[in-house]
Amino acid sequence: MIVLALDIGGTKLAVGVVNDAGDVLADAIEATGDAPSADAVVERLLSMARDAVSRSGIAWQELSGVGVSFGGPVDFPSGTTVRCHHLPGWERFPLKDVVAERSGLPATMDNDANAAALGEATFGAARGCPHVLYLTVSTGIGGGVIIGGRVHRGASSMAGEIGHTLVAPDGPGCTCGRRGCLEAVAAGPGIAAAAGRALDAGEQSALSAIPRAALTAKDVAEAAETDALAACIIGQAGEYLGIAIAGAVNLLNPNIVVIGGGVSGAGEVLFRPVREAVERYAVPESVRGLRIVPGALGRRGAMMGAAALALTEGGWSPG
Amino acid sequence: MIVLALDIGGTKLAVGVVNDAGDVLADAIEATGDAPSADAVVERLLSMARDAVSRSGIAWQELSGVGVSFGGPVDFPSGTTVRCHHLPGWERFPLKDVVAERSGLPATMDNDANAAALGEATFGAARGCPHVLYLTVSTGIGGGVIIGGRVHRGASSMAGEIGHTLVAPDGPGCTCGRRGCLEAVAAGPGIAAAAGRALDAGEQSALSAIPRAALTAKDVAEAAETDALAACIIGQAGEYLGIAIAGAVNLLNPNIVVIGGGVSGAGEVLFRPVREAVERYAVPESVRGLRIVPGALGRRGAMMGAAALALTEGGWSPG
Repeated sequence: MIVLALDIGGTKLAVGVVNDAGDVLADAIEATGDAPSADAVVERLLSMARDAVSRSGIAWQELSGVGVSFGGPVDFPSGTTVRCHHLPGWERFPLKDVVAERSGLPATMDNDANAAALGEATFGAARGCPHVLYLTVSTGIGGGVIIGGRVHRGASSMAGEIGHTLVAPDGPGCTCGRRGCLEAVAAGPGIAAAAGRALDAGEQSALSAIPRAALTAKDVAEAAETDALAACIIGQAGEYLGIAIAGAVNLLNPNIVVIGGGVSGAGEVLFRPVREAVERYAVPESVRGLRIVPGALGRRGAMMGAAALALTEGGWSPG
Repeated sequence: MIVLALDIGGTKLAVGVVNDAGDVLADAIEATGDAPSADAVVERLLSMARDAVSRSGIAWQELSGVGVSFGGPVDFPSGTTVRCHHLPGWERFPLKDVVAERSGLPATMDNDANAAALGEATFGAARGCPHVLYLTVSTGIGGGVIIGGRVHRGASSMAGEIGHTLVAPDGPGCTCGRRGCLEAVAAGPGIAAAAGRALDAGEQSALSAIPRAALTAKDVAEAAETDALAACIIGQAGEYLGIAIAGAVNLLNPNIVVIGGGVSGAGEVLFRPVREAVERYAVPESVRGLRIVPGALGRRGAMMGAAALALTEGGWSPG
């Protein structure tokens, strides 16, 4: 079975032609840029898709379906986007139906965190695991919950919002308007801001060589192997991630926790404090046997998840 | 379809003969007392059951199956108990197989929090709701997660342990050996201890008329309508419950949250701060339409859940 996968993100548009073994037969990626409207984005994606399908050597008619990953909240049952945090024109856009009509293929659509969770569960780090907790940690923190191999979406397609777990009651303000959410203290901007505050307070660190306005979480993570302040700040972010993950582990008892997104690229300097905090704050019976690992699909996670969505809707199930 | 339901608790043993409309045709309840062994408890329950079946006017052969609720952790796939917090002799006891063999009926078994969650979802406050978060708040705090009408048990039958969510980082010690768990600050003993600490610190309250060693959460809840200190303490417990529930609501986006157990009997004085905290700490899209309600089955929750387990295993599904 071969499907088309479309990924609509705030910064990039991606398409892939993917078979049920998870092989990418052809793909393409472009910067989202100043997309004038939802319609125009769909047109661009389908144009990229026609090109990729032609490069893949298969005919459009051989595609079993199309899966779409969208970078914002969606209403899954109706296949409608709610809004996009980065682009205008996506309020209540019937993305699933529009893609189905213009592609002539059965379509399915979900938000990017759910898609990436399903991608990791189907083709990535959580392959073969029935119960998966997925987090993506980058400029924000999203999540996805896989129960028995299927995406758990909840009453209004909002499940997985682990980024707004309260972890620091007196902590910094969050994009959602509240204080002390996980996202406010452990996503990229929160890590950079914590480093900035420490430097402002006069802490000694190699990070002080970087102009304050340019300082990113990546800088902090890269310095953390050798710089005490950077290690402390990444450790604190890992501890907060671990506290939120521990609560989710207590509730869900997953087989595996997969952490993707740019910040997860920090590697062991981040994963070590995450694992230590989960061991400290989750019930031992649920920690025993639990794996906490980086995503295996990188920036392709949401696209591979869109492929997995299309494959699953087409009646396929992982062997 | 008619089933037998058995409930093994630390303080009481209950049996019920229950049909698929949720009618209890006959039941019985006894104090657990000094049960000498797991085998002896099963014998007593089956003796109570034979009596109840005979009173119900049906024949044993008309029973489709037997469901068992157990007051402690279990390994669901093998039908084995892990241990009982209150009674000796339950380490790795093959409860499901023993009940099946001695009753001559197909048996199924789960822990009491999962059973009560399924009971409320099938016959109680959450009837008709696919996604349910259930908490039982009494001497401890347990929980159960219903996804798509089915109990979510997780990788090692440990899902639902919301009582050990970290909510008060510098809070009092918990029975689990850690500090600041929800159970430590919002279960009955934690509420009574908070009242005791406030009285020791010289706070004025009608509660000071009660001998300190006899002070219970029930006393605090009953005083809370008219007494400022009691209202503050119940409000604080409600806030902590709300923080943990908000995290679970963000993650699971349930249709309904059901709170059972003795402490939930406090009523609105507790539910009001719980709802306020959930509104404050959960994402608005998941709070919209969410109901947070007391359990409808009271002390019969686990028994009705055992009946629902047996009915479900027998192929029945709620209409």
